[in-house]
Amino acid sequence: MTPADIDTVRSALGWRYATKKFDPQLRIPAAHWQTLLDSLRLAPSSFGLQPWKFIVIDDPALRQTLREHSWNQPQITDADRMVVLTARSDLNQGEIDHWIDFLADSQGTPRDAFDGLHKLLSGFVAGMDRHRRHDWSVRQTYLALGQLMTTAAMLGIDTCPLEGIDPDAYDDVLGLTESGFATAAVCTLGYRASDDKYAAAPKVRYPAEQVIETR
Amino acid sequence: MTPADIDTVRSALGWRYATKKFDPQLRIPAAHWQTLLDSLRLAPSSFGLQPWKFIVIDDPALRQTLREHSWNQPQITDADRMVVLTARSDLNQGEIDHWIDFLADSQGTPRDAFDGLHKLLSGFVAGMDRHRRHDWSVRQTYLALGQLMTTAAMLGIDTCPLEGIDPDAYDDVLGLTESGFATAAVCTLGYRASDDKYAAAPKVRYPAEQVIETR
Repeated sequence: MTPADIDTVRSALGWRYATKKFDPQLRIPAAHWQTLLDSLRLAPSSFGLQPWKFIVIDDPALRQTLREHSWNQPQITDADRMVVLTARSDLNQGEIDHWIDFLADSQGTPRDAFDGLHKLLSGFVAGMDRHRRHDWSVRQTYLALGQLMTTAAMLGIDTCPLEGIDPDAYDDVLGLTESGFATAAVCTLGYRASDDKYAAAPKVRYPAEQVIETR
Repeated sequence: MTPADIDTVRSALGWRYATKKFDPQLRIPAAHWQTLLDSLRLAPSSFGLQPWKFIVIDDPALRQTLREHSWNQPQITDADRMVVLTARSDLNQGEIDHWIDFLADSQGTPRDAFDGLHKLLSGFVAGMDRHRRHDWSVRQTYLALGQLMTTAAMLGIDTCPLEGIDPDAYDDVLGLTESGFATAAVCTLGYRASDDKYAAAPKVRYPAEQVIETR
């Protein structure tokens, strides 16, 4: 693997910002979009469980409806792409069994070889109530969101993550209520408008000594 | 900003895996390590609130103690670097006031200009109980973890995130109990050992059609 140039990486980290105004004319090239979808699919998750589903919203009318449940934020309709990141609302024993079967099949390994992992995961899930299991799934989904946003920045693609949405309304509109998944967050992706005043604003962060300690 | 080459990005996403065995001899170069710290400090968070503190553990004896609270996983002592990602355990009104003051100072803007945001954030925090505020902070911290891991992969640096730790014991050992922060997760960073058998194992992921839907 040939790593990316360090200056490129540094500059992408500084270049990224939460885009408030997208240029509605600009489209993400197909190969780049595929790479962004891959960054979600290949995202790390604890035990590899992938407790998520990513819903890409292409339909303009659906975008408009969702915008009404998103404090009317224009990114929802103006960004080239929009992904609703949903997390498992009830990660349960059935999903653990399914994952172990899938793992054994994928690796062509007898299922017995995974007995220890199966027991570990079963205990892990049994040790959490439904609320905590959902929470845990949401955390993993935020990790995937981080991978998506950082990958986009490396490719010179702008993003705006949105928590300012009504997740229950999203679940309702998207028919997720009985699906086992619930809306966790949204990410819009595309290219900043040339007049987005936030693009030029300096990034405001606490000084390193306040957020990073060394022991 | 000159974006990274798409093939480089694609290959980094596939190259990354949760490294089980690090080469304890190999060191991350200083400029790369600084870039990884920057990826944490510059990570996105909702409202820019940065509800986190990142604790780098350099002391070998402290690493050994923490390993005992981490199911004895060798990455804790063998990886070149280790970061404990902690999240605010009680994001409260005082922190909101502090953030708004800091924002106004940083941008050289009168504090009055942020009255709307101050009211919004105060309502946001007041609307959650302590448990949910902590949870919310942990989610943001996982986003930062995602940015860290993806940035590392782009730079050709291996990582292993660890949830399999005893967070209460970590808080105790690190003296975090009264600090307003609590251990959320750990990330170890360095370079894979040439005989880590997991490096060659195919990445097991559900097929795209199971985790990505288009509407």
